[in-house]
Amino acid sequence: MQQPDLTTYRYLVLAEGHFGPLTSKTANSAVRFLPDRVLGIVDSTRAGQTVQDVLGFGGEIPIMGSMEEGLRLNPTALLIGIAPQGGALPPAWRPALTAAIRAGLHVVAGLHAYLADDAELSSLAAEHGVRIHDLRRPPAGLPVSKGHARNIGAYSVLTVGTDCNIGKMTAGLRIRDALRARDAKVGFAATGQTGILIEGWGIAVDAVVADFIGGAAETLVLKAAEGNDIVMVEGQGSLVHPGYSGVTLGLLHGSMPDGMILCHQPTRTCPYGAGNPYSWMPLPSVPEMIRIVEGAIAPLRPSPVIGVSLVTFDMDEAAARDEVARIQDLTGLPTTDPVRFGAEPLADAILRAAARKKGN
Amino acid sequence: MQQPDLTTYRYLVLAEGHFGPLTSKTANSAVRFLPDRVLGIVDSTRAGQTVQDVLGFGGEIPIMGSMEEGLRLNPTALLIGIAPQGGALPPAWRPALTAAIRAGLHVVAGLHAYLADDAELSSLAAEHGVRIHDLRRPPAGLPVSKGHARNIGAYSVLTVGTDCNIGKMTAGLRIRDALRARDAKVGFAATGQTGILIEGWGIAVDAVVADFIGGAAETLVLKAAEGNDIVMVEGQGSLVHPGYSGVTLGLLHGSMPDGMILCHQPTRTCPYGAGNPYSWMPLPSVPEMIRIVEGAIAPLRPSPVIGVSLVTFDMDEAAARDEVARIQDLTGLPTTDPVRFGAEPLADAILRAAARKKGN
Repeated sequence: MQQPDLTTYRYLVLAEGHFGPLTSKTANSAVRFLPDRVLGIVDSTRAGQTVQDVLGFGGEIPIMGSMEEGLRLNPTALLIGIAPQGGALPPAWRPALTAAIRAGLHVVAGLHAYLADDAELSSLAAEHGVRIHDLRRPPAGLPVSKGHARNIGAYSVLTVGTDCNIGKMTAGLRIRDALRARDAKVGFAATGQTGILIEGWGIAVDAVVADFIGGAAETLVLKAAEGNDIVMVEGQGSLVHPGYSGVTLGLLHGSMPDGMILCHQPTRTCPYGAGNPYSWMPLPSVPEMIRIVEGAIAPLRPSPVIGVSLVTFDMDEAAARDEVARIQDLTGLPTTDPVRFGAEPLADAILRAAARKKGN
Repeated sequence: MQQPDLTTYRYLVLAEGHFGPLTSKTANSAVRFLPDRVLGIVDSTRAGQTVQDVLGFGGEIPIMGSMEEGLRLNPTALLIGIAPQGGALPPAWRPALTAAIRAGLHVVAGLHAYLADDAELSSLAAEHGVRIHDLRRPPAGLPVSKGHARNIGAYSVLTVGTDCNIGKMTAGLRIRDALRARDAKVGFAATGQTGILIEGWGIAVDAVVADFIGGAAETLVLKAAEGNDIVMVEGQGSLVHPGYSGVTLGLLHGSMPDGMILCHQPTRTCPYGAGNPYSWMPLPSVPEMIRIVEGAIAPLRPSPVIGVSLVTFDMDEAAARDEVARIQDLTGLPTTDPVRFGAEPLADAILRAAARKKGN
């Protein structure tokens, strides 16, 4: 689970042809959470712009037109900045990878296809003395979950969502930071490649053999609880996503959270938004989704949704504030967009719930 | 997915120390569904008994005290008859495996640890010209499910359950046989190692990388629907099982069944029965479980439970008949123990539902 080198690399990020607010989740999270260690992005279709121009955050980090230009920034590692659905390495990227390795860069990737298993890349890496980190590769010997995670002393919180790619990791990290600002001892259980990149440890639960999803989650929660009073568990997928719901339920039942934070994007009406393979199904409303996630864990233990985290970057500020207020009224739960308006209301809700657990 | 050799082997079944009604699921299913191709069982703790003595079915198939004795029955393949939780090969079995290979037997196994990846066993198999079939090894290139399985013309039925190992595959196969006896064209989508053993094709959905559970199910259903009017999808696990629920939800959302058959054992009160790692949680009642499974697919499509399949081997006949009647009254759904009382009520319910779908 531990990959300590990850906490020191200075990255050039490959996002060729796909750098954008919705298309380069790994790159964007690296910018958001490791801004001092992202030296530049490679995307020839955006060359000359800054990250701020494209994402609306990220400041002056430059977007480079080629690997050659990017290498002049003196990075120590190349990060694959997008995670294509299905997870395979697009053949067009191979020249960029070999160029990076030849230039002495380590390679960090979160694809389902493990780069270290690629004969050309691994022998080239050995020749040039660099490491290939496949963030998604699971550790050996994972157990089948037994429900042990329900017995930790810390208060555990899982971020869940109405959909994939809807702010579950970001909410978790923002809440963690807000909790630490209040001097709480918080562990973060990273369950996806981007969370592992940021934290330096974790297990990508979507990459384990299906029987061990829950066991991976249980293993992570037990470790993240050590020496901490609160555990934030990074959520994955959605219980209503036709492609990924199995990962989500396994994570829910393996992590056995004391409470949950529900993540939602008000403008999204079907999985991944309109015009995609899932446009045939509507997303549940926030109250419906609260019933679904609470109902899914109820047979194992009671676990309430204790707050709502919204993604509102595509709404103007007045509309976003109105929506936060509307959802808060509708659900009776603390609601915020943790990126836009701060995570404090959710951190405070967790502190109150943790105090109640400790008092019992 | 296709393993045609599997339809011809004559098996010696290794179940050393574990042959019994609840402990040797793969062996027992081979006896039940391939009785003419199971020549003997190896379990020194039961040597001299018949399969009938131990299971209550299976007739005069002998239980042998050693591999040496078993080989005298002239089998063509050794079947690993139990699937230990976690899936690894117990070291104590290695001598039996090497003895079988040296004697020219093919090897068929459903463990998570693939025997063909074992250097000693695979080189020994090559030396002796025999094949190793790892039933659980998934095919390459599985997709993420897109919901395509909801669009097949055939009527599809998924067996679901209140628990693991509660008759989902057996009910599906019995129902399939009853449907074929009524001249229906039925495909069976095998989703576990034992179903694959019996059918000769399928994908073990619990062994795929977690992101592809639904995609494996979708692939199977599309194939099983070809040329058929009804598809029986073998269920796995349970939506309330703390260890395996992720597999179950992925299978449900990938297979997108038109209807479901709920499997239950009246005497079972917690996952795997009492005295196990899950004894801290009660199983839902049949009506509660119907609400849970119907609710879990409702956001994607409506799919009703259309019948209940009970496992009553541990009840006397009068009590079993009373329980069938009680569940039928309670739920308003056709109910039977398909092994003890026949699968016809469930087959008829499916034919009625299939006719309604065709009529729409």
